[in-house]
Amino acid sequence: MLYSAGRHRALNAAARGLWGRTGTAYFQPVRCTVRPSSTASVAYTSDKYPSIQRRTDLKKVSAEDVAFFRSVLPPTSVITNEDDLFTYNVDWMRKYRGRSPVVLLPKTTDQVSKLLAYCNQQRLAVVPQGGNTGLVGGGVPVFDEIVISTNLMNQVRSFDDVSGVVACDAGCILEVLDGYLGERGFMMPLDLGAKGSCHVGGNVAANAGGLRFLRYGSLHGTVLGVEAVLPDGTILDNMSTLRKDNTGYDLKQLFIGSEGTLGLVTGVTVSTPRRPNASSIAIQPSVNVAMVGVESFEKVQATFRNAKGMLSEVLSAFEFWDSHAAGLVRAHAVNKAQDPLSAPYPFYVLMETHGSNKEHDDAKLNAFLEHLMENEVVADGVVAQDEAQIKSLWSMRESIPEACSKAGAVYKYDVSIPVPKLYELVEDMRSRLESMGLMGDLVKDVIGYGHMGDGNLHLNITASTYDKRVTDAIEPYVYEWVASHNGSISAEHGLGLMKAHHIGYSKSAAMVNLMQQIKQLVDPNGIMNPYKYFPERA
Amino acid sequence: MLYSAGRHRALNAAARGLWGRTGTAYFQPVRCTVRPSSTASVAYTSDKYPSIQRRTDLKKVSAEDVAFFRSVLPPTSVITNEDDLFTYNVDWMRKYRGRSPVVLLPKTTDQVSKLLAYCNQQRLAVVPQGGNTGLVGGGVPVFDEIVISTNLMNQVRSFDDVSGVVACDAGCILEVLDGYLGERGFMMPLDLGAKGSCHVGGNVAANAGGLRFLRYGSLHGTVLGVEAVLPDGTILDNMSTLRKDNTGYDLKQLFIGSEGTLGLVTGVTVSTPRRPNASSIAIQPSVNVAMVGVESFEKVQATFRNAKGMLSEVLSAFEFWDSHAAGLVRAHAVNKAQDPLSAPYPFYVLMETHGSNKEHDDAKLNAFLEHLMENEVVADGVVAQDEAQIKSLWSMRESIPEACSKAGAVYKYDVSIPVPKLYELVEDMRSRLESMGLMGDLVKDVIGYGHMGDGNLHLNITASTYDKRVTDAIEPYVYEWVASHNGSISAEHGLGLMKAHHIGYSKSAAMVNLMQQIKQLVDPNGIMNPYKYFPERA
Repeated sequence: MLYSAGRHRALNAAARGLWGRTGTAYFQPVRCTVRPSSTASVAYTSDKYPSIQRRTDLKKVSAEDVAFFRSVLPPTSVITNEDDLFTYNVDWMRKYRGRSPVVLLPKTTDQVSKLLAYCNQQRLAVVPQGGNTGLVGGGVPVFDEIVISTNLMNQVRSFDDVSGVVACDAGCILEVLDGYLGERGFMMPLDLGAKGSCHVGGNVAANAGGLRFLRYGSLHGTVLGVEAVLPDGTILDNMSTLRKDNTGYDLKQLFIGSEGTLGLVTGVTVSTPRRPNASSIAIQPSVNVAMVGVESFEKVQATFRNAKGMLSEVLSAFEFWDSHAAGLVRAHAVNKAQDPLSAPYPFYVLMETHGSNKEHDDAKLNAFLEHLMENEVVADGVVAQDEAQIKSLWSMRESIPEACSKAGAVYKYDVSIPVPKLYELVEDMRSRLESMGLMGDLVKDVIGYGHMGDGNLHLNITASTYDKRVTDAIEPYVYEWVASHNGSISAEHGLGLMKAHHIGYSKSAAMVNLMQQIKQLVDPNGIMNPYKYFPERA
Repeated sequence: MLYSAGRHRALNAAARGLWGRTGTAYFQPVRCTVRPSSTASVAYTSDKYPSIQRRTDLKKVSAEDVAFFRSVLPPTSVITNEDDLFTYNVDWMRKYRGRSPVVLLPKTTDQVSKLLAYCNQQRLAVVPQGGNTGLVGGGVPVFDEIVISTNLMNQVRSFDDVSGVVACDAGCILEVLDGYLGERGFMMPLDLGAKGSCHVGGNVAANAGGLRFLRYGSLHGTVLGVEAVLPDGTILDNMSTLRKDNTGYDLKQLFIGSEGTLGLVTGVTVSTPRRPNASSIAIQPSVNVAMVGVESFEKVQATFRNAKGMLSEVLSAFEFWDSHAAGLVRAHAVNKAQDPLSAPYPFYVLMETHGSNKEHDDAKLNAFLEHLMENEVVADGVVAQDEAQIKSLWSMRESIPEACSKAGAVYKYDVSIPVPKLYELVEDMRSRLESMGLMGDLVKDVIGYGHMGDGNLHLNITASTYDKRVTDAIEPYVYEWVASHNGSISAEHGLGLMKAHHIGYSKSAAMVNLMQQIKQLVDPNGIMNPYKYFPERA
């Protein structure tokens, strides 16, 4: 018998005793934002990428500039101290490091407007920064750009419990905002590993995808309004709280995914769904989480097709990872947690349901799991029996990035590929690095995981250190592979510095040309997040 | 007892006998696109709006131009015959009429590219036209603009039954495309009254909302890709079939809702959901439709709040209309259909559920309706028992626009207002027209209906004829009212010619200024759909 009985509530007579096992030890939720504690080991981006030249048309920050900033902001909101600057100059992966001499912490949109208008007039480059949880070096300076952080812009502006529309400052932390909504029976449509640190404005600027994109959709659909300050200080007030508004070009969409290159997002309104575990309604709502072990990627796909058909409207996440990811989590997890499944499997799938009726959701999940078992699609599995177990199963998935980072260096690629080909890239990359003799002392492992439901693969290559031989073996091979399979070289992480020169793999020259014209129109002096996003200045 | 027993399947023991009644006669589905049959009665737009002047920088079509068009297209695709031109020059409401001397019917994107490049070079104005079902005069010429119709661009390019992503030409008729998807177990996320005539490219250009926006969301979220031809002939190929793609500004978003002012949409890719009545999966999926009579708008809101809580993830539409709308449908419906409810009510609500499990959906609907009854939220109701009754109930709602148009002239307003204030505008407008002495021979009725779930009201004012006194009584009052309640003066119909001068009620000067700069950037000669959308040329 594949499934041993446990404390779990049998879902119906047919499945009684087949499903459910209590894992002996569970992970605690983790945060991916580990601030670097020492400065010595992080190389400067400008040293690592000598081909990137500082733009000579951009001014260096002077004492007069700092004096101006101090006339707009209180003294504690203008950071020039070397130690304090460090955390704003370095990304959480310790892969990118800039030399910004000043970090600004405005509290209001008007302050942002004054700061940007001044910087634009003075040709001072600016990097907008949220929670600094980005993965492509988009949120930290390359040279001496000024960092404007949304750390102090963290107020909820309004919430309407009829429509579920929330309006808030850009610097609200995703998890805090979700908690605020949770108390009111609603939830953010967006969830991702960095939720404890990332800012909602940064999520919008980066067009974050995350764990429940499958169910609640893209920010292009759920974000109803954006307030952004343009480089010249113009405040673009598009903080609509309406679900429908067809009056003119939908300008806010340009800012969703613009990574701070067009302006600084200061406010956001979001259409939020009902929280499935809110107890304000008559029937008991529910969240279920199941994790299964699967023998092949073909069977992962079969599990997905069945989930779409049988879990359908209650399916809220479909995540997968491979045995390499599971091995790293096992080896490196802080709590020495054990995999709740009885044996290792080539692939793991985590599925979640969100619904308004626990009985119905249990019945759907049960019928679905029975179907998978009867047809030998899955080899083993557990269903979480309470909130703690739900968190534990999720933490298996969510601790993968942190487990990877323990290896030393991680080469992270985030791509969209049509689902049937999704895992082929991982296998091809593994073979390639092996055949090139790089596996071993230098490259440690090639890991595949991601948001299966969205065709979104995270390919991570762990290594003892960042090394040009490894980079050259991976790039541009990975981009060419993705382009030749009609994929996208950035599914959800964005372009940042990392992929600024690679947009051509996913977008035509005509598309890039129009983007650059729009950039030129909105930011003619090119002060907003330079060196990122585009191959070169328009 | 409010509910008489009927042929309907009792949903559970508690509700047995309470719900369900077979209406004695049902409407047939209607189409809102009734082509005008005589030319005499439709006034020219330029005569009705003498303040709009033909732009002198735009060239008039010459014999040489027509010869060029005939070199690109076959003879039957260059229409210059007066009778054939008529249907392209007049909108379906017979409210707007242009004088285009030539209509072009390209079949390929390359042909569109050649035509637009030529028109741009020659300064010939162009109106892109889909199914000509628009409601704001955006799809027909004002003067002698050339019409480029997508009538012959109607091929499905690809469909992937794993991801549910369809790629197709812009001229595919929505209902035909939905039928194609239906055969494959999927459905278009978009549905609207004009589905039998409207083109999917036109839907995208107008950012259509429609009946199931509540469940399946905005086109900004469901449209994955757009192919558009810019005025200079550049083909912008953004036909992505990926759910996630963060490589650069999301340019396709600019075309969603641009109403043909930036370029001509030639292709679209859409992420389509599973069809709930597809029988390809193990469990019986379902569609339920219920219609209830309600005594007050407060109770309509209470019904909505309960539906969001108790129907939750299966709720796919929540439509309401008032007794005035119901009266018109009763008086004018082609099939002399009877209201299936036993008596007239001040308000009617149609609710639909889409789900993957009929038993669960029936149980949710039943519990919900029982709750409404027990709490005296609704006064009467029926549940459709089969496909024919589902269509009949929907046709009650869908025949409102046609019933209105039988009065003679209809002043149509499509606004977003926060839900609690939604119906106040109808009452205020009714009082205003009464107090001004216009009700009677001139103004016949003031009707309110719409997509309650989206805060989207359709305010229709029927009159014996279009008359300046009526227009002046309604406008700008209606726009001021909406602006003062933080609404939008166009929820889903767009700006077109009708609201080109009113965008300022919903968007700030800074927003409009940036829109105009983008227009100027993409269409420097202003050949794309002139006189529409913007108050004046940038």
